[in-house]
Amino acid sequence: MKKLSLLGATGSIGQQTLDVIQQHREEFSLAAFSAGRNIEETRKIILNFQPELVSVERREDAEKLKAEFPAVTILYGEEGLMEAAVFQSAEILVNAVVGSVGLNPTLQAIEAGKTIAIANKETLVTAGHLVMAAAQRHNVALLPVDSEHSAIFQCLQGEKEKNIERLVLTASGGSFRDRTREDLQHVTVQEALNHPNWSMGAKITIDSATMMNKGLEVIEAHWLFHLPYEQIDVILHRESIIHSMVEFQDSSVIAQLGTPDMRVPIQYALTYPDRLPLPAAQRLNLLEVGQLHFQPVDRERFRMLALAYQAGKAGGTVPTVLNAANEAAVAAFLDGKITFLQIDEMVERALEKHQPLSNPDLETIQQTDKEARNFVHSLL
Amino acid sequence: MKKLSLLGATGSIGQQTLDVIQQHREEFSLAAFSAGRNIEETRKIILNFQPELVSVERREDAEKLKAEFPAVTILYGEEGLMEAAVFQSAEILVNAVVGSVGLNPTLQAIEAGKTIAIANKETLVTAGHLVMAAAQRHNVALLPVDSEHSAIFQCLQGEKEKNIERLVLTASGGSFRDRTREDLQHVTVQEALNHPNWSMGAKITIDSATMMNKGLEVIEAHWLFHLPYEQIDVILHRESIIHSMVEFQDSSVIAQLGTPDMRVPIQYALTYPDRLPLPAAQRLNLLEVGQLHFQPVDRERFRMLALAYQAGKAGGTVPTVLNAANEAAVAAFLDGKITFLQIDEMVERALEKHQPLSNPDLETIQQTDKEARNFVHSLL
Repeated sequence: MKKLSLLGATGSIGQQTLDVIQQHREEFSLAAFSAGRNIEETRKIILNFQPELVSVERREDAEKLKAEFPAVTILYGEEGLMEAAVFQSAEILVNAVVGSVGLNPTLQAIEAGKTIAIANKETLVTAGHLVMAAAQRHNVALLPVDSEHSAIFQCLQGEKEKNIERLVLTASGGSFRDRTREDLQHVTVQEALNHPNWSMGAKITIDSATMMNKGLEVIEAHWLFHLPYEQIDVILHRESIIHSMVEFQDSSVIAQLGTPDMRVPIQYALTYPDRLPLPAAQRLNLLEVGQLHFQPVDRERFRMLALAYQAGKAGGTVPTVLNAANEAAVAAFLDGKITFLQIDEMVERALEKHQPLSNPDLETIQQTDKEARNFVHSLL
Repeated sequence: MKKLSLLGATGSIGQQTLDVIQQHREEFSLAAFSAGRNIEETRKIILNFQPELVSVERREDAEKLKAEFPAVTILYGEEGLMEAAVFQSAEILVNAVVGSVGLNPTLQAIEAGKTIAIANKETLVTAGHLVMAAAQRHNVALLPVDSEHSAIFQCLQGEKEKNIERLVLTASGGSFRDRTREDLQHVTVQEALNHPNWSMGAKITIDSATMMNKGLEVIEAHWLFHLPYEQIDVILHRESIIHSMVEFQDSSVIAQLGTPDMRVPIQYALTYPDRLPLPAAQRLNLLEVGQLHFQPVDRERFRMLALAYQAGKAGGTVPTVLNAANEAAVAAFLDGKITFLQIDEMVERALEKHQPLSNPDLETIQQTDKEARNFVHSLL
């Protein structure tokens, strides 16, 4: 029985993680979890999974839950999130919060020796050098949950990193893949949220439409697989059936495929290095799919991908700015304060304004993150 | 430095194996090899690779070579082939002869404790139970060289057999994939030899056109990967880019891809579990390929595939008859003695006539093989 702690239990990845646990009650149990403000859902999770510790965002919600569930430790706020991350009896932390708020709990859990199933890509983007160094120092495994990185991780089983020629991340192209840049002037939030292949949270769906998501994934792959950016490519693959590939030095390519379903990579991280059946997942039927398509990514059209490569290569505090400015700009777009194309523009302006620092410590990163968000807010 | 023995050095796989050795002279050396009647090529191989032992088909050719290369042990005939297979200083046997003649040397080499790189699929088809039992008894690795089986083998690295849901072998469809069965009445040998994707020997190219090749591969996969036929599927994939796939119980699919080039699986068998660069191989460019197509295989149109599944499931001496009758019928077609569709017909008649025996020993298999060939010859 593996005991888990789950951060971000009421979000999209969190809910799908709970579904995986639900299907394997004899294998996994939920020891602790964190949620935000969705108290109705939090209540359901407590009743169903009977965790020992729960943390929510606000004090008043914690007080309410305490009264209802006196046997459960109920905490709140950032401190509660940390307690959930390092909860003693949990062996694995599934970090499914969205945004750079996931960084601190990840670092704390690494220091506590937990295996990390990492769905929070912003953590590695914003402070990859700190996270990877901490994981190495504490001999802790970082297991990717993102479908692309899980694909690469699966393809690398039994292989040696020295034999990798390059990684190829596939990109669906997101909600607007068939539109020109001009067409994007007046797109709405609703249109942007309508992803063709994957059912995901709002932030990542917008990131898919701008292709910042793929940019963040390139940076994440750089850290997870210890490869320079020159060995990480992106290819447009509209069906999202091939989730990513690894090309080796002998020209052999290993790919991972499947019907898009986040429960598969989530479960793989939980069962690794083994697998378990997942009857709820729809099996891939290539005869029904019929064809797979591949196209180059136009980096003029998808400017955010080019920006992400630049930021990744620059390193230091630059990826932190990229990520924080993007988080602020996407939030502003979702709030109806800016247009879709202004997301790119604001990230670009934040990057231009920033004076890069190399090898930043955690405090510098947090400061940089804050400044970049403030800069974007000042433009609204 | 790994020392190799290579059976069938002047054939298609043999020549490509030599090319791999040529590109890695510091890694591999050719200790021994066998050839047939192509003495000119045999001479070249001796001069280039300086083996210790060589075996050819005919005594008169052996005498000639002895005079030319007094420092090399030159043998001939079946006995010479055996000596090459078990040559003491060779660590790996690459068995690249065509047809069930490859069976005995493989069994001998297994008993001598050699690692077997097996390109000779007829060996496993005709006597899979004997070969696998011997390999287990002597704790010898059987490394597949066929591109499909190498693909599956690569996909299975780091995985557990218990987690396999099914194997999916891809089939190009061969030279006549776009023709109806009626269209096949009057096709010529030349047309049949014109494979769209792979450069291979004559026998396997005809087997591709009838899809007996895929049938033999299904039986080979059954033995190599210890799976029932119900867990082995075949799918038409005209580009031959995905060389085969493994679906796991969690619905995740791992595939191996590449530009068709037999040197890649050959080299993988030689470097396994490591890899080496193969600069001569053309790297896969999915942007150039653009699309991959998948279709069901029509088992009425490709009757040989259905026959192979039936023979494999029946087991015992039945696959031996399938293979021997096919070898005889393909030879007759290549000699212009029968039409293309008569290959299917003769194999079917040989199977109908045969009285199956279960769990046959080597002698029974050899007797069955001979009878099936004689039966086909009697029809000519």
